[in-house]
Amino acid sequence: MELTPVADLPEIRPGDDIADLVADRAGDTLAEGDVLTVASTIVSKAEGRTADLDDYPVSGRANELAERIGDLTGEEKDPRFAQAVLEESTELLIDAPFLLTETRFGHICVNAGIDRSNVPGHDLLLLPERPSESAARIRDGLEERGYEDVAVIVTDTCGRPFRHGQRGVAIGWDGLPASRDWRGERDRDGRELGVTVQSVVDELAAAANLVTGEGAGGTPAVVVSDWAFGDLDGSDELFRSVEDDLIRQALRGWEWRADE
Amino acid sequence: MELTPVADLPEIRPGDDIADLVADRAGDTLAEGDVLTVASTIVSKAEGRTADLDDYPVSGRANELAERIGDLTGEEKDPRFAQAVLEESTELLIDAPFLLTETRFGHICVNAGIDRSNVPGHDLLLLPERPSESAARIRDGLEERGYEDVAVIVTDTCGRPFRHGQRGVAIGWDGLPASRDWRGERDRDGRELGVTVQSVVDELAAAANLVTGEGAGGTPAVVVSDWAFGDLDGSDELFRSVEDDLIRQALRGWEWRADE
Repeated sequence: MELTPVADLPEIRPGDDIADLVADRAGDTLAEGDVLTVASTIVSKAEGRTADLDDYPVSGRANELAERIGDLTGEEKDPRFAQAVLEESTELLIDAPFLLTETRFGHICVNAGIDRSNVPGHDLLLLPERPSESAARIRDGLEERGYEDVAVIVTDTCGRPFRHGQRGVAIGWDGLPASRDWRGERDRDGRELGVTVQSVVDELAAAANLVTGEGAGGTPAVVVSDWAFGDLDGSDELFRSVEDDLIRQALRGWEWRADE
Repeated sequence: MELTPVADLPEIRPGDDIADLVADRAGDTLAEGDVLTVASTIVSKAEGRTADLDDYPVSGRANELAERIGDLTGEEKDPRFAQAVLEESTELLIDAPFLLTETRFGHICVNAGIDRSNVPGHDLLLLPERPSESAARIRDGLEERGYEDVAVIVTDTCGRPFRHGQRGVAIGWDGLPASRDWRGERDRDGRELGVTVQSVVDELAAAANLVTGEGAGGTPAVVVSDWAFGDLDGSDELFRSVEDDLIRQALRGWEWRADE
């Protein structure tokens, strides 16, 4: 398996065609069966998903949240930002000392994935509205330019429980299933496998993040070649619902206390 | 970045020298600065970390746990297995409908990572006792054979909250830091980065798991080349303590109810 960053992508502006920009720069690398990973930041920029704090008239709920976080952490929280997070979310899983929410498309992350560091000319960069549809559009764009059967993954980086640090994850994908199902496969001794469902889109996103880098030298698109999904069954279930997730159940009704 | 599976490793037996077996098969591939990932299953086999259910005289606590899980799920749980999980763990985070524990070396996973599917001649395969020490031994072994400066990661696969499926993670490492710290770095517009600490060992483990595969055709060791940690600061903190982990705090005192 080989990962090649797509070099020299320009600063992305609203309306830019990512498939076009990638094809121009990685056309020689891209082959049938490859996977292209694209950082959500540039997808959001191309889709004009920027916003300003003043776009968010503050509700009572946002005021409460910002005040409570301010009181508990001693750091001031802009209620307009809390409002933006609420508007991008369907459920608030943790309301202090930070906002952990489920976004409208099912991804669980801090602050609904809203980025305050990466937005020329605006206050906020929101995540793509429907990242799997974004992936499909990029895939279609590549196909139109003659690059057949390239799967596309839209990636984000976020933290996680139990382990420090952030890692790349998939938030949208098209052209490959989210996971690979090993159920029924057997080991060398004929025993059934313990590991059953492998989240390949997340593993691809994590791999790509190793070559993407951050900051000014970052390369937000990566071509993965010499890797194949194989002929196992696939599934497109990536985001757990409350019913499938004991941690989400445990978070319901739980409140953070600063003394813990 | 390139990932090459180490082909044709034999079934690993207690006392086998993994550095030796890998050097014999991947000696032409291995270069200074490469990372070798090794699945915990073969590290455990080489270290003789097999066990049998009869090795675990059942405590009252293990009986209680097995009974409760049996009552709640309708599936019988062997109390000797519950006892094995307790003996490999320092904290029980979830006690039903499955056992989620912190292992003695800090990794949080179901059943303390004990494997029942992958153990010729025994009932159980335990995780390595101190995986970072295992990684250091393999790294030293490679160095003795003339392969200088190869980092080693011992990997496992496990599930996670919020997202379906399993992905590769690091449980031990030597020769590189666990994470890369981007704090103070800036984006193209000079803004400070939102993402700060990148868990590179987990991303490398996830990447390797894409080429490792499972089952009879699996290749439990992978060479990662053309990737460098770079000159950013590193940290070796990978496992969160309760104080650093809101999810662990929320799980304290929480009890699963079958009707949720």
